[in-house]
Amino acid sequence: MKMKIGFIGTGVMGASMAKFLEGELYVFNRTKLKAQELIEDGAVWCENPREVAEQAEVIFTMLGYPDDVRQMYLGEDGLIEYGRQGQVLIDCTTSSPELASEIARAAEEKGIFVLDAPVSGGDVGAQNGTLSTMVGGAQEVFYRVEPLLQSFSNSVSYFGPAGSGQHTKMANQIAIASGMIGVAESLYYAKSAGLDVERVLETISKGAAGSWSLSNLAPRMLSGDFKPGFYTHHFLKDMKIVLGEAEKMGIQLPGLQLAYELYNDLSDEQKKNDGTQTIINRYI
Amino acid sequence: MKMKIGFIGTGVMGASMAKFLEGELYVFNRTKLKAQELIEDGAVWCENPREVAEQAEVIFTMLGYPDDVRQMYLGEDGLIEYGRQGQVLIDCTTSSPELASEIARAAEEKGIFVLDAPVSGGDVGAQNGTLSTMVGGAQEVFYRVEPLLQSFSNSVSYFGPAGSGQHTKMANQIAIASGMIGVAESLYYAKSAGLDVERVLETISKGAAGSWSLSNLAPRMLSGDFKPGFYTHHFLKDMKIVLGEAEKMGIQLPGLQLAYELYNDLSDEQKKNDGTQTIINRYI
Repeated sequence: MKMKIGFIGTGVMGASMAKFLEGELYVFNRTKLKAQELIEDGAVWCENPREVAEQAEVIFTMLGYPDDVRQMYLGEDGLIEYGRQGQVLIDCTTSSPELASEIARAAEEKGIFVLDAPVSGGDVGAQNGTLSTMVGGAQEVFYRVEPLLQSFSNSVSYFGPAGSGQHTKMANQIAIASGMIGVAESLYYAKSAGLDVERVLETISKGAAGSWSLSNLAPRMLSGDFKPGFYTHHFLKDMKIVLGEAEKMGIQLPGLQLAYELYNDLSDEQKKNDGTQTIINRYI
Repeated sequence: MKMKIGFIGTGVMGASMAKFLEGELYVFNRTKLKAQELIEDGAVWCENPREVAEQAEVIFTMLGYPDDVRQMYLGEDGLIEYGRQGQVLIDCTTSSPELASEIARAAEEKGIFVLDAPVSGGDVGAQNGTLSTMVGGAQEVFYRVEPLLQSFSNSVSYFGPAGSGQHTKMANQIAIASGMIGVAESLYYAKSAGLDVERVLETISKGAAGSWSLSNLAPRMLSGDFKPGFYTHHFLKDMKIVLGEAEKMGIQLPGLQLAYELYNDLSDEQKKNDGTQTIINRYI
């Protein structure tokens, strides 16, 4: 008998991830059109999250902002309200670690298990099933659903209690954020110095300045290709979560703070429509 | 007949590079002891730069600060004063692009050719002859000495007129500087969040946060190994050069500026003795 799996949030990332899951799929999305392909492939459309909660044994969510996550899990008609004992809810949204803990506590009272399992690897990783998935929550629950997570991932790692997956994702975003500033300023300097920037990029990519961003996003900065691999407004959301967590921890992250401000200087259009490589437009 | 090659500045980097050069080697260093191994291998010791200038057809310099370069090339008893027509001087020091232009102009009047050819790849790259060498100056002169540069390099690239090698190196350092801040803050956050930082590092290194620094220097940050691959005081020098050049160009590099300030916050001991991974001590 096939496992009944729910998937809520079938946007660019979610729809790609869901197609790797083997089981009877129950899907919901605010915009039904974005679930169309999954439905054509046999997924059962649900009119609301409640229907998903009533059907599926394991439910994935891939939403936008922490507020969406809060509403979906803790709100009226939310997953916790309609969930049942033994059910596993897995939030793949990059969201607040603190909220992840709060949800886990609320779920526990009803005997529902929740994991936070944000991913990295962007749209391409989702399409190819090569995401890196970072998991927090009860370890025995993690073992139970690990094969499901593996189906859309290259690497699945468990990091500790609820919120630990989110914290790990935040550590990831922190490294990326200042790195992107370095990449953009490097290109800006090279251009201002009158150098052949493509040639500079080719050379410095191979050495100690080398990074995923330099190899993958700097060429897009130079060619003016701002199509989103990862949306700037989502990156801003992540950085804001980091700053909130850092404040709670009483630690200072001046590099991340600066990156947030520089990204925030971009136009509303750039934030809404462009990938993170658009930061070059803050300079050039 | 063997080519007569001069090498001035046989510190950690210089001594390693010099040993790859095939020819009759004439060496000078402020501290003779650091040239000892080369002398034992057959290099001719010179009592001062003048002696090197009088013997060699091609002279490499690998010095510390721009002021050392200025003194060596333009000072009394400097290489330009004692150089002769057709001689090629190659400065591998990471130094000011503007100074490189100034030296090239002064040399031209005497029919001496000068290239700026800073390297990246650190002590390990120098030991293995796998440096990345970035060259500025007259292109026909570059072609003449390219085989010599190849002897200690993995990659040798020409970027344009005098100063272009230095500018390229600066673009390299800019990308590294903010990247290092991102790496340090990522580890600091992960540690503060109570995560298993080694495990976080292992996971995030493979994805979009991946970089040379994260793979090579973050593990040293975690193990408390601050042995210099690249000295912090040299990195500070480079960043200061960048800030000076940026000011002349009328461009702003807030990320680089912040990285400079954060590195500058380190103790004098840390700056003098530690490698650049010591930036983690600014946080933890």
